[in-house]
Amino acid sequence: MTRVLGIDVGGTKVAIGVSTADGPALSAHVRLDTGPDTLARALAAARALDGAPAAVGFSTCGVIRDGVVRLAPNVPGWEGLELPRLLQEAYGATPVAIDNDVNAAAAAELRWGALRGVSTGVYLNLGTGLAAALVVDGRVVPGAHGAAGEIGYLQVMPGEPAFADGRVPLEERVSGGALAARGAALLGRPVTAAELLGGGRAREPVDETPSGDPARELVDETPGGDPAQELVDETLRTLAMSVANLCVVLDPERLVVGGGMMGAAELILPRLTAEVGRAVPFPPEIRPARFADDAPLLGALALARAAVA
Amino acid sequence: MTRVLGIDVGGTKVAIGVSTADGPALSAHVRLDTGPDTLARALAAARALDGAPAAVGFSTCGVIRDGVVRLAPNVPGWEGLELPRLLQEAYGATPVAIDNDVNAAAAAELRWGALRGVSTGVYLNLGTGLAAALVVDGRVVPGAHGAAGEIGYLQVMPGEPAFADGRVPLEERVSGGALAARGAALLGRPVTAAELLGGGRAREPVDETPSGDPARELVDETPGGDPAQELVDETLRTLAMSVANLCVVLDPERLVVGGGMMGAAELILPRLTAEVGRAVPFPPEIRPARFADDAPLLGALALARAAVA
Repeated sequence: MTRVLGIDVGGTKVAIGVSTADGPALSAHVRLDTGPDTLARALAAARALDGAPAAVGFSTCGVIRDGVVRLAPNVPGWEGLELPRLLQEAYGATPVAIDNDVNAAAAAELRWGALRGVSTGVYLNLGTGLAAALVVDGRVVPGAHGAAGEIGYLQVMPGEPAFADGRVPLEERVSGGALAARGAALLGRPVTAAELLGGGRAREPVDETPSGDPARELVDETPGGDPAQELVDETLRTLAMSVANLCVVLDPERLVVGGGMMGAAELILPRLTAEVGRAVPFPPEIRPARFADDAPLLGALALARAAVA
Repeated sequence: MTRVLGIDVGGTKVAIGVSTADGPALSAHVRLDTGPDTLARALAAARALDGAPAAVGFSTCGVIRDGVVRLAPNVPGWEGLELPRLLQEAYGATPVAIDNDVNAAAAAELRWGALRGVSTGVYLNLGTGLAAALVVDGRVVPGAHGAAGEIGYLQVMPGEPAFADGRVPLEERVSGGALAARGAALLGRPVTAAELLGGGRAREPVDETPSGDPARELVDETPGGDPAQELVDETLRTLAMSVANLCVVLDPERLVVGGGMMGAAELILPRLTAEVGRAVPFPPEIRPARFADDAPLLGALALARAAVA
């Protein structure tokens, strides 16, 4: 079977994998930390893993615009990197497909996971950051500048500080990173988003969407004088409105939710389901993503698989 | 040249037109009021205008879902009408294309107007109501239930009354109808949105997008103790945030604005341009629509033209 290579450069780590069949399984993989010379080290590790893949898929934080990486401040040397040109130099005639990490994860869900067979859909990534991928006609929509679905930039209050002020308004309110930062400020000690969301509940795949119970939701939302609980409630209320608004705009048949915050899927999915049911004229089905940690790497392999198909 | 027929059923009137060339010109047209038996009267008038068109385009308020009209409370007998079946019975083997009025207007702008050649775009209708059409790959996106772009249902405040409560949150804040209703309540006398927006400035096509001047905008926004002015400012601030958010989601290359509120284009477009420039990572170009009052009828003709092409 045709061998393809996937490379995922995230905010803190690089994951590289090889697959030999059209499915979400790795025949070999390796991980590195990001840092100086991330691309050169990644390409060397990839060559060591597979010197002659049939195609290469590359998933990256940020977006590709006019041949360079943008909106990727976390990886040293990544912002402004001419990634498409450098990959073409490295791989010559081998097909190379590049997309951002959330779009790549959506490609994996479309090819092998919870978005399979969906024509109009949304993949929502609730991780350290916040972003979505829009699916129309069964394909991920890039947007005019590669930035469709970058919902971290949504404003919540008219006129509030926004992109031009160096801000990421919605992401600063509702992402895992924001929750941890705001929780730490509130409690005066380091705290993770997972702790705040569910007392460190184990990170396990969830097979079914729990049914929303509006009456119980109402009780859960009543402030109980616990400031950490109020922070979580406020965060989920804002997140749920934003997700409902996203569904109003696109009118998807299905919304699939992935990312690290899905360790608290039992808390988050019923809230999203209830709010989408309340505020969207034709509410989509809401499902957990099939793939968790490895979604962008599997996405890179899905991009590579599409490039040979 | 092939003759096609367009029918537009809006909230208060029906417009019917015939065109003989692939362009936004009518060779004959007629108008009726909506009311009892709107469809039967429209079809009779259409037959009188042209008994044997090569194709029929139909633009309607509301959306078509599962073969019936939904979200169209204003026209008696329209909600729940089996419009596709009835039109097929009326026209037999003649191709009939149906879409909602805003999507149809976007089709006219795509075929002959300000969205020509655009791959990823948005058509925004600022009229008595509020809605948008999303364009991806040069075509209007229907959504899974025909409701993509129905941005009147967007929430502005987390948890506020929404669709399930019979509300249309954003439309109730920022449409022409909302502005007139809120202005009348504020001033204690009937007032139109046009009066509030510009002292009854003449409704004329605007050829160029006025350039935004952030400094002047800032001064304009300072509350001057005039409650009508404050209402207009608040309305435009909320509208501008919502439009910027829509652009964040889709990442369009161009946003085209039409509808009756564009009589105040000189006031509205600079506000939208400034806010989109401030809040969207890759701001789209913003342009006035080419077509004003007749946009949905021209859209019906564009749908018909596409059905024979």
